[in-house]
Amino acid sequence: MRRITSLLLFIFSVIELSAQTNDSAMFKRISDDVFTNSKAYQNLWFLCKKVGPRLSGSPQAEKAVKETFRMMKELGADTVYLQECMVPHWVRGAKENAFLVDVNGKPVNLNICALGNSVGTGKKGIKAEVVEVHSFKELDELGEKGVKGKIVFYNFPMNPTNVETFRSYGEAGQYRGRGPSMAAKYGAIGAMVRSLASNIDDYPHTGTTTYNDSFPKIPAIAVSTRHAEYISNELKKKKGLQMYFRTECEMLPDAKSYNVIGEIKGTEFPNEIITVGGHLDSWDLAEGAHDDGAGCIQSMEIIRVYKALGIKPKRTIRVVMFMNEENGLRGGKKYGEVAAADKTNKYIFALESDAGGFTPRSFGFTIGGAPLQKLKNWEPLFKPYGVYEFAEGGGGADIGPLKETGAMLCGLRPDSQRYFDHHHAGNDVFEAVSKRELELGAVNMVLLLYVVDQYGL
Amino acid sequence: MRRITSLLLFIFSVIELSAQTNDSAMFKRISDDVFTNSKAYQNLWFLCKKVGPRLSGSPQAEKAVKETFRMMKELGADTVYLQECMVPHWVRGAKENAFLVDVNGKPVNLNICALGNSVGTGKKGIKAEVVEVHSFKELDELGEKGVKGKIVFYNFPMNPTNVETFRSYGEAGQYRGRGPSMAAKYGAIGAMVRSLASNIDDYPHTGTTTYNDSFPKIPAIAVSTRHAEYISNELKKKKGLQMYFRTECEMLPDAKSYNVIGEIKGTEFPNEIITVGGHLDSWDLAEGAHDDGAGCIQSMEIIRVYKALGIKPKRTIRVVMFMNEENGLRGGKKYGEVAAADKTNKYIFALESDAGGFTPRSFGFTIGGAPLQKLKNWEPLFKPYGVYEFAEGGGGADIGPLKETGAMLCGLRPDSQRYFDHHHAGNDVFEAVSKRELELGAVNMVLLLYVVDQYGL
Repeated sequence: MRRITSLLLFIFSVIELSAQTNDSAMFKRISDDVFTNSKAYQNLWFLCKKVGPRLSGSPQAEKAVKETFRMMKELGADTVYLQECMVPHWVRGAKENAFLVDVNGKPVNLNICALGNSVGTGKKGIKAEVVEVHSFKELDELGEKGVKGKIVFYNFPMNPTNVETFRSYGEAGQYRGRGPSMAAKYGAIGAMVRSLASNIDDYPHTGTTTYNDSFPKIPAIAVSTRHAEYISNELKKKKGLQMYFRTECEMLPDAKSYNVIGEIKGTEFPNEIITVGGHLDSWDLAEGAHDDGAGCIQSMEIIRVYKALGIKPKRTIRVVMFMNEENGLRGGKKYGEVAAADKTNKYIFALESDAGGFTPRSFGFTIGGAPLQKLKNWEPLFKPYGVYEFAEGGGGADIGPLKETGAMLCGLRPDSQRYFDHHHAGNDVFEAVSKRELELGAVNMVLLLYVVDQYGL
Repeated sequence: MRRITSLLLFIFSVIELSAQTNDSAMFKRISDDVFTNSKAYQNLWFLCKKVGPRLSGSPQAEKAVKETFRMMKELGADTVYLQECMVPHWVRGAKENAFLVDVNGKPVNLNICALGNSVGTGKKGIKAEVVEVHSFKELDELGEKGVKGKIVFYNFPMNPTNVETFRSYGEAGQYRGRGPSMAAKYGAIGAMVRSLASNIDDYPHTGTTTYNDSFPKIPAIAVSTRHAEYISNELKKKKGLQMYFRTECEMLPDAKSYNVIGEIKGTEFPNEIITVGGHLDSWDLAEGAHDDGAGCIQSMEIIRVYKALGIKPKRTIRVVMFMNEENGLRGGKKYGEVAAADKTNKYIFALESDAGGFTPRSFGFTIGGAPLQKLKNWEPLFKPYGVYEFAEGGGGADIGPLKETGAMLCGLRPDSQRYFDHHHAGNDVFEAVSKRELELGAVNMVLLLYVVDQYGL
């Protein structure tokens, strides 16, 4: 018995070794093809420069739907189709500006932008005293007495000591998300948050604020980090400093939009669905190059590579351009709902790229245990391509709703040092993306999907 | 006996575990301090914007010596001193330009630059037929008959399929290095090489060419990758296409210059020297931000951190700004010579950062075996800071001559995807460096030096 076991173990390990050798050769073929023939960079250029900013509900978002539909067709998807979803339709309006009313007798302009989904001030704008706080605790201590009729300025910098910048984003992000409503609770008439940026510069960074229906909706803006520092300094010098700001943004009725889905049909298990995607919408201030044009374009790359190398997937690969991640997640939710109700197909795996087109470092998985252990057999083969870890924890916003289907979810984790220099700001443009970094991310995504498709979970 | 051994092993492992816990806490203190208080980014700004391009022998190189001397003093080095060395003094001259003589009846300007250390054409320039080759084999096949009196155009692209871009640089670099002399061997009157760039753009990338004294020294230029592709296309359409180029560069007599050295004296083993450095000179076309302002500034960071945290090194830490890496390596050679002749001190370790200020990935060591195995005990502690591997192979050009002393040599290996977008070209500027990536590199360098200093080799 022991001998047979040993023999079997030996045979299995030979099979595994030989599979890994083949995989290693296939990995190289895939990588070489991406670096030689990829359309990712030029398609990203098109999305950034010819489509441009594409906030949900905007004409550019509509154009992005049409153009990525075309791209996936041209790359060779078996079928490309649209999945309808209603999206919030927030518009920034014609004008936004702000200034400190009186610094040494003069007004001083500030670099600001309205927060996504916020209400506008109307054309007259608002003028009031600025009250700086660094935490909700400070706000609570000020209470109605200290806040009523004023503009609350949340000056909470992203913590520079977290090597993983997303952690600092999470910590600081609550002031953008809940800050305006928490200020309104005490009677503030406006809110201003320090931009969620890891550097000191002149770009205001937008992003969604989420109103709490129990309190009045007050206008809310982000101010550049440099001006946040400046205002803080001025407040030290002059108590009762006033500011003015004007935003003309407003929320229009929901608009019809779409997820764009491209498929390559599986040859052996066509009902097992492997999803990969990024989000097609972007903020309106820039080109959405890193956020998330990169993720969209990288996701498409598997269609091109599989056609180019003649790889027929065993399972069905579905490339999804999710609509409305930024200010509603309606596309992700719709895809998740449809998947949950789908009795024909089994959703086994989903991969999301929505952390920028930077050099890849690892993958994060929502499911540990045996499935992750199985995948970890291939982990060493990824190292030559820059991904050195398959870690627990991860996923992504758009694929999050797929959790109900039992699918294993995974997020590409690129290096995060530069992300918050560009995130939601005017400098998230094509020129900020490195061709090779973008492609190396795409390489690793295709490699991971290849393993999942070939060997299941 | 066995029990005692077990007991001893247990005690050792407890000691090691506790040392590692302490180290882990110290690592965090060091990292936090760099991300909070580092002067690296602002000093790099100064070096790029206030000193600027600093080719050996130039007034800016002289200024760089003075300014980095000041910086190390200000950062708190115990002593800062100069180490004299004679350097080649090559100057680009007032004017360089090139064009294809006749494309559809018109001249077409080309983006070119003279190769470092090359001879100029004189004010009249040279005009001749262009012969394209893709290898030395092709050149040999053409021989004197095909090459004499012509301009040889080496059109060898960097191989995009190598994930490690330095490998492609090595493969393609031989045409810049030996190409002009190999062409002269067959009677060519000029040489033009495709820029060593991993992307297609309009920047010519300079770099040293090395003449073989057996053949005439002919003028040599680099052409932007976009124009290399263009010329290649035009040559397919029109045999006998001629080009003109003019360079006014020349080699002047050697000039006096210096390595700049800052020290913190060791408290226990002051005669054991740990060297860390980058090179102070840069090419003249840009600001030398990644190459190698970043490495210089990162190297200095240990002085600031040690003073800030009150760490007293056991061994002597020597921070060296090497002069003339780009076109002579005279500073590195001088430092190596002095070290080899130094009977007082023992050179145990040297770390170089000269691969750009990008996000760090690994360290490469020239010595494997027991010393590397010992260091590898700390490898897992580096992972939270982005360095996931201590690998064999590495070192660096400037510390290379230290090999004779028996020192273990090590190079920081940042991610290499973007390096050859900027290397030796006009876009190697401060703006191309990410503050956090630069600092994260510095963090890992200080951590490694800390371990070597604390525990020896």
